[in-house]
This record gives sequence, structure tokens and C-alpha cells, in this order.
Amino acid sequence: MSLIEALNWRYATKKMNGKAVPQEKVDQVLEAARLAPTSSGLQPYKVIVVTNPDLKQTLLPHSFNQSQIIDSSHLLVFAAWDDYTEDRINGIFAHTHNERGTPPESTTDYQKMLVGNYVPRGEEINFNHAARQAYIGFGIALAEAAIQKVDATPMEGFDNAQYDEILGLKAKGLKSVAIIALGYRDEAGDWLVNLKKVRQPLSEFVIEFK
Amino acid sequence: MSLIEALNWRYATKKMNGKAVPQEKVDQVLEAARLAPTSSGLQPYKVIVVTNPDLKQTLLPHSFNQSQIIDSSHLLVFAAWDDYTEDRINGIFAHTHNERGTPPESTTDYQKMLVGNYVPRGEEINFNHAARQAYIGFGIALAEAAIQKVDATPMEGFDNAQYDEILGLKAKGLKSVAIIALGYRDEAGDWLVNLKKVRQPLSEFVIEFK
Repeated sequence: MSLIEALNWRYATKKMNGKAVPQEKVDQVLEAARLAPTSSGLQPYKVIVVTNPDLKQTLLPHSFNQSQIIDSSHLLVFAAWDDYTEDRINGIFAHTHNERGTPPESTTDYQKMLVGNYVPRGEEINFNHAARQAYIGFGIALAEAAIQKVDATPMEGFDNAQYDEILGLKAKGLKSVAIIALGYRDEAGDWLVNLKKVRQPLSEFVIEFK
Repeated sequence: MSLIEALNWRYATKKMNGKAVPQEKVDQVLEAARLAPTSSGLQPYKVIVVTNPDLKQTLLPHSFNQSQIIDSSHLLVFAAWDDYTEDRINGIFAHTHNERGTPPESTTDYQKMLVGNYVPRGEEINFNHAARQAYIGFGIALAEAAIQKVDATPMEGFDNAQYDEILGLKAKGLKSVAIIALGYRDEAGDWLVNLKKVRQPLSEFVIEFK
């Protein structure tokens, strides 16, 4: 299935049937997110995968009791860096040089420029920037789920602070930004499944300067 | 080519050769962005496509003189709504009902809830939320470009205010957030083309709660 076909096939599943998504399909979704581009390659976010039923039950009331939290088999919580720090930025470059066998000093100036630009902006601007990068991976993960014919619900409707607390994200320097519930649709119980997908027409979505 | 293969193939092209991307490939990239999911289906962004050489030249100095601005054939400027307003939200739902033939009153409560939650938050929070949605489409467009074997440079390094001014975005209620330059790599002049793609290992990128 092409990406365009997959995007036409997918929809924000409103009711799931509890069937488990095979691990190899989940792995493909995570791999797509891992490969997603990010600003300067910093990958300033992680994906928390929740399959534990008790934990999902704990998260349910902090998710407006949306049933996909427990009827999905895997919850993917995208959590962005709460800030850019010198250590985090330099850590990413150290890993890159290690993998490439390139001299660390070849990016010293670039790293200094990033640290000099990012760190003084402060936590709020930096978290917002990191969150945007997480949304790139979030979109690409949703696309790969559809290619795998796995249903998914993208969710922003949850109590971020409660999630951060329950999942221990603060200690990891992370803040939750968005969730993908992975599972399979319950056709009979899903009010959205048979409704036409609607998007703005291309003539309105695109503005051309020729 | 699968999405995963495409993500492995792509890289942030640093030097392009000026060759034009066929319009049908650009159309697939735009279609992927158009089909991308967004919060409540509001699609709070547009894509500005710049092919005009004079306009690209005008944008160049406001883009740190990065050569892809002029050596690409198409610049895709993703621009998010500067705010959520009652009119904008209701306009999207009116279009959806028109396309589906569903009764407008079936989402009156939901629309009121969105307007009541979003509008009072103010412009800055709303723009940041809209920008995140734009990044979903931004990532999916980059993925489709790679599937089409079109090179691309994702760019945040430009003067947003100048872009908004030059492209007349303020009058449209939009603010630029990120650019994709579409074109073809100049292998000889691109320092990044032969370097290994590096990502955090899956064991660090993913945190599991089983």
C-alpha cells in the first residue's frame, strides 16, 4: 500500500476491539518514528510504549476516559525534551561521531552555535521547539501504522502533567505531548468508521507563487 | 519503496543541482500533506509553494543564504494559523458537513466545546498548537518526497517575520513555521551525502512499560 493510499485508509479510530497488534508491526511503527527527521538531528524526544494493563487503567481517568486507552494494545506516548541543554546537545553529537568515525572537533563550532542559540532562549521556547520535532515523528508513525494496516488514534486529549507524573517523565527530562493508541477498529461501535474523510481542497490548502 | 526504506534513503540535502522536480511528484508530496491527520481535523495550516525565481532570490538573504533556496525547484513553506477563531473552526465543520451530507447541528456541541477551549487560550498558545499540526504534515510530506525519490531539505533556519511579510501571510492569518526545499542532490558538492545516517538506538529511543 502506498503512503497516499494508507493516508486515505486511516482514520482516527474511535472504538477499538481489544485485539493485540503483533509486535513486529509495532516495531515497524517505532522504527519509522526513530528514522524521522528532526532539527539538526537532535531527536529531542522519546516514545514511551505502554502495554501494561494496570498502567493503562491508571492512565484512563487522565485521558477523559477515552476507551482506546484500554481497548488499544499499545499506547505510544510521545514525550519531548523539557529543554535543550549543552550536555544533551553535545551527547547527540558524541554519538554521531562515534557511529561515523568522524573527528569530534569537526562539529565543535556548530555545536557551540546551537548551544549559544538554544540554551539562552529558555525552557518554554525550547520545549515548544522539541515538541514540534516530536510531531514530525508522530505523523510518520501514524503513516507507518496505516501502511501496516494497524488502526490508530492520535490523541492530545489527556492530562499531560498527570501522564508525566505517572510515567516518571520529569526525572528523565521529558514532557508528554501526544499519544498514539494502536489497535484494531470495532466497526460496529465506531461512529466515525463509515464517514467520508474530508480535507480542504487542494486549491485552498495550497497557495502558489509561480 | 517502503516508507522505512524511504526514510533510510533520505537525508537533509545540503547542495542541490538545480534540476526541476516533475510537477506530478510535487503533487504527490502536497497530497500527502493534505491528507495528514490534524487535531479535530481542523487542518490549521497551509502550504505556500514558491517556484518563481525572483521571489526565491528575494527570500534567499532571509534564509541565511542557504543555496537550496535557489537550487531547489520548489519551496514548500508550511504556514500555520496565527490563532484559532470561532469563524475558522466553524468554517472547517461547515465544509465537512457539506462534503458528508451530515446535519450541521450534529457537531454544534463539539464545535462550541472547541471554541470555548481554544479561543480564550490566546494567540500564542493557539499558534503553537497549530504549528504542531503543521509539523505532522511537514513530516509526512518529507516522507512522500523520499518515496518519490525526490531530495528534500527540511529548513527552520529562516527569518519567519520576513517570510510572512514577503509572502503576504499576515493578511491570510498565517505565520510561516518550516520549509521543505524540493530538488535533486548535487553529489559532488554535498558534504552530507555520503555520511552514515545516525539515530539514537531503539533501546534509548523507546521506553517500555510492560
